[in-house]
Amino acid sequence: MSSGKILVAQGGGPTAVINQSMVGVALEARRFHGIERVYGARHGVRGIVDEDFVDLSQETSHNLELVAATPSSALGSTRDKPDLRYCQEIFQVLRAHAIGHFFYIGGNDSSDTVRIVSLEAQKAGYPLRCIHVPKTIDNDLVGNDHTPGFPSAARFVAQAFAGANLDNAALPGIYVGVVMGRHAGFLTAASALGKKFPDDGPHLIYLPERTFVLDRFLADVKAAYEKYGRCVIAVSEGIHDASGAPIASLLAKDLEHDAHGNVQLSGTGALADLLCEEIKSKLKIRRVRGDTFGYLQRSFIGCVSDVDQREAREVGEKAVQFGMWGASDGSVAIRRTGFYSVDYDLLPLDAVAGKTRVMEDEFIDEAGTGITDAFRLYLRPLLGSGMPDAFRLRPSPVAKKLDRAGRDDASDAG
Amino acid sequence: MSSGKILVAQGGGPTAVINQSMVGVALEARRFHGIERVYGARHGVRGIVDEDFVDLSQETSHNLELVAATPSSALGSTRDKPDLRYCQEIFQVLRAHAIGHFFYIGGNDSSDTVRIVSLEAQKAGYPLRCIHVPKTIDNDLVGNDHTPGFPSAARFVAQAFAGANLDNAALPGIYVGVVMGRHAGFLTAASALGKKFPDDGPHLIYLPERTFVLDRFLADVKAAYEKYGRCVIAVSEGIHDASGAPIASLLAKDLEHDAHGNVQLSGTGALADLLCEEIKSKLKIRRVRGDTFGYLQRSFIGCVSDVDQREAREVGEKAVQFGMWGASDGSVAIRRTGFYSVDYDLLPLDAVAGKTRVMEDEFIDEAGTGITDAFRLYLRPLLGSGMPDAFRLRPSPVAKKLDRAGRDDASDAG
Repeated sequence: MSSGKILVAQGGGPTAVINQSMVGVALEARRFHGIERVYGARHGVRGIVDEDFVDLSQETSHNLELVAATPSSALGSTRDKPDLRYCQEIFQVLRAHAIGHFFYIGGNDSSDTVRIVSLEAQKAGYPLRCIHVPKTIDNDLVGNDHTPGFPSAARFVAQAFAGANLDNAALPGIYVGVVMGRHAGFLTAASALGKKFPDDGPHLIYLPERTFVLDRFLADVKAAYEKYGRCVIAVSEGIHDASGAPIASLLAKDLEHDAHGNVQLSGTGALADLLCEEIKSKLKIRRVRGDTFGYLQRSFIGCVSDVDQREAREVGEKAVQFGMWGASDGSVAIRRTGFYSVDYDLLPLDAVAGKTRVMEDEFIDEAGTGITDAFRLYLRPLLGSGMPDAFRLRPSPVAKKLDRAGRDDASDAG
Repeated sequence: MSSGKILVAQGGGPTAVINQSMVGVALEARRFHGIERVYGARHGVRGIVDEDFVDLSQETSHNLELVAATPSSALGSTRDKPDLRYCQEIFQVLRAHAIGHFFYIGGNDSSDTVRIVSLEAQKAGYPLRCIHVPKTIDNDLVGNDHTPGFPSAARFVAQAFAGANLDNAALPGIYVGVVMGRHAGFLTAASALGKKFPDDGPHLIYLPERTFVLDRFLADVKAAYEKYGRCVIAVSEGIHDASGAPIASLLAKDLEHDAHGNVQLSGTGALADLLCEEIKSKLKIRRVRGDTFGYLQRSFIGCVSDVDQREAREVGEKAVQFGMWGASDGSVAIRRTGFYSVDYDLLPLDAVAGKTRVMEDEFIDEAGTGITDAFRLYLRPLLGSGMPDAFRLRPSPVAKKLDRAGRDDASDAG
């Protein structure tokens, strides 16, 4: 099977390294003699049905390399989730342009799109090779040791919490940082990789893999605050009660916040603010601050894992090799082979499409509010080289000179 | 004037480079033969009145260098704003420990504390040399070209907006990023340094130096959205109406959000969420997302300007030199001498204490929603080396194959 034209597109949320995969496809494809043109669809599947293509063959390799190192989706992305008829339309366009190979870089939804388009081509007897290229900061694709994009986002989260911990140590209080990940807690758990000294935060981590109970949360925070004189907390945007209802909606309802009633998890500070209010009002702690990492964690320029860059590039290259030399459609997956080394497999689309991986039990500690060494070992190599490190002064106290027994507090005196 | 003991302390919000100044003081002081001990007060003025000192002379130079490169205040900080009696107590403790030189690293409030302590020592006829060492991410100290800590925070903001702009270009909509700075808009304005291509965001910037008018804001956003098909907006947390009332409180009141009624500017996502709701409801735009940069912009580890590091170190060293060789108390200030070079002055404490610098008019464009080339020239050298750069694909469109005149939208078909 061979064709003169291939098409590549990018779907879903952008990542720091998704352009590495796109450029990996574009440059590797041009090494194959049968390939005449490499098209890119603008804004994912939306650009396919709109026939909004650019000819990547006309790009310079030099500029492609620079784009590869630039975060976010250079071709543009889309939130469209194609149904059967949408996929049929995609197929019609691919056929009209005589596309022989279709590479779609994205997460679960994108892999399902690739699966349906592949079936349509088979039904029509049209020779189309369809390959899904993995990408998601949520790390929730099954069959993958991890997914491109996750390591760089995890690095951002780890660095953010390392800094938030230092800030919180300087001005003690409660700090709540809300991290993306609706179903899978990997990215929230990455906050723990910012810890160095034994009393460093995050002291508590709340994951969507465990049921969130407000009273237990408040008791945990109280205990940590009493122990450390401060508390840094990492919270997944996806935390929910036993029935699966998002905590943000429940708290918003309790507090009758109309505007937060219909809760959108990303792109608002609602959950962080609501949890902070609970802590302030129930635990009577004054200095309580919440941050929602929001889009920064996936789009911040200049915080990228070199391991992630390398692998994102390779899944793109391997996708083309599987597509040109292989005999079947599929989804490229990362398999860990050593400490630390990887190789790439082509999984059947059925095995990946529409499925969601969550954090394995061995990665979450017994209390459910921390991570295990297994997770630390799993994640550390992915974060790449040059992780910033934090140092502190060692204690060498000076003896007091003034005899001020019974004196409480200077601010009372002042 | 010479004494065997000096004291250094850190006040106010931590910065990425405040430890450079502390270590600059500690290492430079030990080069003076008269200095026997370098004490650090834990948690700023609070640690002074509590006599909570550590002996920095017993630290290794090696560890001090590592601490210097670590963000946040290694000695701890405080939000206490000493009044006269508090300052008198500070002075009593300094005298009890026979401190001859007092170095306080901080912003406006800290410089005022230094001023009052200096006066108390003079009144008592006690030989105390008091030097204020500048620090603030807000860049609002008068008499300084800029303040240590600002360049690194500005770099974070510029990088954050460069990434947010790429994300917004991939998935078009409205993005609102809320930046710290209650009175001075320097940090918010730094968002513009992330722009490269002419249509890059931020497309609109709202500063506390200009009155915020909601209707004008909505009209600006509408116009930008129509022009670019998307809009990235940088907003200072300190925006206010003509009477000076914070916009966050006004919007919260309008929308009857009880929990946001008493608005705290930092550490909540209220302002971003409220502005997003206004845009959604009034302009009927669907994809509207808000981020509040919160503590990340001052505490993120791994995003630091090398120029800032260097200067923060030097203000600490110069403070000691001014203090040991000079004949007067004062506040160290950065003076720009070239493109780009600086030198350091010692200003009278009166000239700095309690005053607030805001953005000069020449830095703000006529519309009030953008910055000038003068500001770009002012800020660029401060951001330091190795700023990440963004690249994009060049257009080379592919001709359409399908004749689908009158066809609107694939999702309508699907």
